Amino acid sequence: MSDTPQTPDNPFTPWREAIESTLDNWLGETQPAQARLQDAMRYAVLGGGKRIRPVLAMAAAVAAGSDADKALVPGCAVELIHAYSLIHDDLPAMDDDALRRGKPTVHIAFDEATAILAGDALQSLAFEVLGDRGEFGAETRVRMLKTLSRASGRSGMVGGQAIDLGAVGRTLQLEELQHMHRCKTGALIEASVRLGALASERADGATLEALQIYSRALGLAFQVQDDLLDVEGATATIGKPQGSDAARNKPTYPACLGIDGARAHLRCLQEEAVTALTIFSSGADPLRQIADFVVTRTH
Amino acid sequence: MSDTPQTPDNPFTPWREAIESTLDNWLGETQPAQARLQDAMRYAVLGGGKRIRPVLAMAAAVAAGSDADKALVPGCAVELIHAYSLIHDDLPAMDDDALRRGKPTVHIAFDEATAILAGDALQSLAFEVLGDRGEFGAETRVRMLKTLSRASGRSGMVGGQAIDLGAVGRTLQLEELQHMHRCKTGALIEASVRLGALASERADGATLEALQIYSRALGLAFQVQDDLLDVEGATATIGKPQGSDAARNKPTYPACLGIDGARAHLRCLQEEAVTALTIFSSGADPLRQIADFVVTRTH
Repeated sequence: MSDTPQTPDNPFTPWREAIESTLDNWLGETQPAQARLQDAMRYAVLGGGKRIRPVLAMAAAVAAGSDADKALVPGCAVELIHAYSLIHDDLPAMDDDALRRGKPTVHIAFDEATAILAGDALQSLAFEVLGDRGEFGAETRVRMLKTLSRASGRSGMVGGQAIDLGAVGRTLQLEELQHMHRCKTGALIEASVRLGALASERADGATLEALQIYSRALGLAFQVQDDLLDVEGATATIGKPQGSDAARNKPTYPACLGIDGARAHLRCLQEEAVTALTIFSSGADPLRQIADFVVTRTH
Repeated sequence: MSDTPQTPDNPFTPWREAIESTLDNWLGETQPAQARLQDAMRYAVLGGGKRIRPVLAMAAAVAAGSDADKALVPGCAVELIHAYSLIHDDLPAMDDDALRRGKPTVHIAFDEATAILAGDALQSLAFEVLGDRGEFGAETRVRMLKTLSRASGRSGMVGGQAIDLGAVGRTLQLEELQHMHRCKTGALIEASVRLGALASERADGATLEALQIYSRALGLAFQVQDDLLDVEGATATIGKPQGSDAARNKPTYPACLGIDGARAHLRCLQEEAVTALTIFSSGADPLRQIADFVVTRTH
């Protein structure tokens, strides 16, 4: 089982190679005194993953009329935030997961203290690379900083995790569930798309607005499919024990809408995402393919 | 006992009031769904503290020839990073401390998961406020972003914590100890001073260089005094059990140099810091007072 299927007809393969190489480069310098920290950061970031966030950023840059590579740095910055959040999510005090993508989680492979610090350092690094790169004007970099920091913090990803934490063991209404996921996973998906558009340095207000509608629907679709896979998938395919969210009594879309209801909701969200792209020409085809991938993926 | 003595002749009192009010304002908006997270963030940040980092930023802005208030936002951003690092440091998997400034630590007052998330969200917020404030040009904000992110991450504060973690139980050479502290506490002290100078938007190369020498010596002096207080001070004064670092077999300056040696080293560092300020006129008096405070403080 591989988390990054590299089939010959996958148009994103060269993008993913550029992403892996960028991330590897950022995590390459090892200082002996901090070697264990650096190893844990590399283990967490380079341990596979679909790279959906940087791929989305690159696809958004193309939709906005520039080269995909323009979005490589901000897209990979989002990936660092995502990676740090997984490390902290897996900690004993949080989800207490021992496996991630079929491999021991960071606190198992290293230790808990190193896992906490590796997550902390990855968050700093995400902001460092936004400041470091000379290819954008200062105004663009400040807009990127605002986008990424808001999406990451209390009103975005971390806020969503806090809601999730408080929701274990009680049944959420659909609206609360949507709000939680819009923060927890949606905020970074939206930020990826917006950062890609900002990186193009060509996106006008209408472009940003259409992309926001797209990314908001896509983020929710991604989560609905995640929940469906958790109920339906096999452990070998999704890399974590099947039904583990339900077993933990975490709120899920199938629990809220039933399996058929969740499937119908997923189709609606995909249609909403694709409809938002009608103002774009074929430049948005990568974004359209990602919307298809999200609903058809099996892991 | 109070961590922020407000004697009538304390020239920093109005600065501290502005700092408290800025921090309170940033942490003021409560969204019901994330109320517990927000409460934990407030508890950690507004629970007292000497505010040495924002005060340093403001003093550096004055030395560089501008108003102290110019450095309020970046100085308070450093304070958020400092506050998050204390929350994570106190966690059971790290130092496992139940008390901080005489009050229960965040994971005791709330819970471990909330403490992890509150730290994570405070880090994001530190970068968010740097991006948000319109009072600086975009170029200045990008320079601030670089300074803060580097000082916070793997080559700065978090890197220092990782070295510290690996050093428990073995005797460090003075050079290793200095390197650890330059990262662990020094990086944020240096960043505070540099951010203040950047905020003035008037600092030339010579100013930045003199301030760097000052802040590097000050950061180490601060740590030497911390170690001395840990050996000599009473629990009631420093807010944590006396000798707790030594009991944990953590490397300290007194362990490395003896108590008299550590005291002599402290005086050298103070002199180095004050000497670096000779290029400045009376505008650097607040920085000089801080150097005095660091060596004479009793908590």
